[in-house]
Amino acid sequence: MEKQFRTNLINSLSGFKSVVLLGSKNTEGVENLSVISSVIHIGANPALMGFVMRPVTTQRDTYKNILAIGDFTFNHIQPSFVEKAHQCAARYDASISEFEAVGLTPFYSERMNAPFVKESQVRIGLSLEQVIPIPLNQTSLIIGAVKEIYCPESVVLPDGNIDIEAAWSITVSGLDTYHKTEKIARFSYAKPDRQLTQIS
Amino acid sequence: MEKQFRTNLINSLSGFKSVVLLGSKNTEGVENLSVISSVIHIGANPALMGFVMRPVTTQRDTYKNILAIGDFTFNHIQPSFVEKAHQCAARYDASISEFEAVGLTPFYSERMNAPFVKESQVRIGLSLEQVIPIPLNQTSLIIGAVKEIYCPESVVLPDGNIDIEAAWSITVSGLDTYHKTEKIARFSYAKPDRQLTQIS
Repeated sequence: MEKQFRTNLINSLSGFKSVVLLGSKNTEGVENLSVISSVIHIGANPALMGFVMRPVTTQRDTYKNILAIGDFTFNHIQPSFVEKAHQCAARYDASISEFEAVGLTPFYSERMNAPFVKESQVRIGLSLEQVIPIPLNQTSLIIGAVKEIYCPESVVLPDGNIDIEAAWSITVSGLDTYHKTEKIARFSYAKPDRQLTQIS
Repeated sequence: MEKQFRTNLINSLSGFKSVVLLGSKNTEGVENLSVISSVIHIGANPALMGFVMRPVTTQRDTYKNILAIGDFTFNHIQPSFVEKAHQCAARYDASISEFEAVGLTPFYSERMNAPFVKESQVRIGLSLEQVIPIPLNQTSLIIGAVKEIYCPESVVLPDGNIDIEAAWSITVSGLDTYHKTEKIARFSYAKPDRQLTQIS
């Protein structure tokens, strides 16, 4: 199989993926943004999220920054800045801030030593917990603890769910195709011998 | 923070997620289906996919089956059977096949010792490669090698991408909310100082 054909095929197999802008900065204070489509929920208690870091990629700066500084941010992407977000995948020199290069705005909280994306409605501040090597292909699972959450109050449902569709968060398929969503249904907790109901 | 509120909140933070039915069977031949929303692309060459397995959950049977048999399947979910798919999350006894309980049809290929879901348009056969423990919360990253792919020829683009939106694959947010998608755009490979173009 031709290499790019194979890459496209296998990347689209895993289904629709979370896509975020990962914000970090280096010890000289240069900010970095990278597009990450391998974010994964690790657990709610303690609150942990992870992503797969490729061995040598545009994310090298990201990796160095996270190891050096410890803090990083995940910022959901909305249709209004999807093109700017995709452009963050370009291999800019380490001395260049992707915020400036693509035209997004850094935002700092009091606690986190990493920039959030001001334009993003759902923003998460994390601190590095563990780097787990995946020897099969020299990637790593980077796990962070959730320290801060910013999102509009209007999209937080009474039961704690964030209505990320109402927050305009988008999803990605393959390497380069972005999608908005339309809710089909929310279902009740599944139990044997009990009919599911829809939650509105 | 109240436990269920926290669980809902943190689960919705990671954005839209891949959701598949994982097919397996035990050494007595009893088939199992579970809903997995933590599928992650690990790499294209070798072709590897993974998912996070919780320590003690409805997926215990799944875990035992994968360790004992080695083969398992990922099956994309379409709106036509989303309710049946969600019902697979119920804690059925190990002697009960979720296929029968919810009304889905097992399908076997010649090579894989695990059932596919016949109703699913995008189906992947995998064999276990590695179980990587995540000591932070006693979960594990289960990694499989892609051995077989079934999908309609009509949704495979000339460059290898599977148009999973055209295959009616859906996505999930939080624990229980399912969404269909609508493509915003596909963008060209990002390079510094070059304007992105849209790929149609």
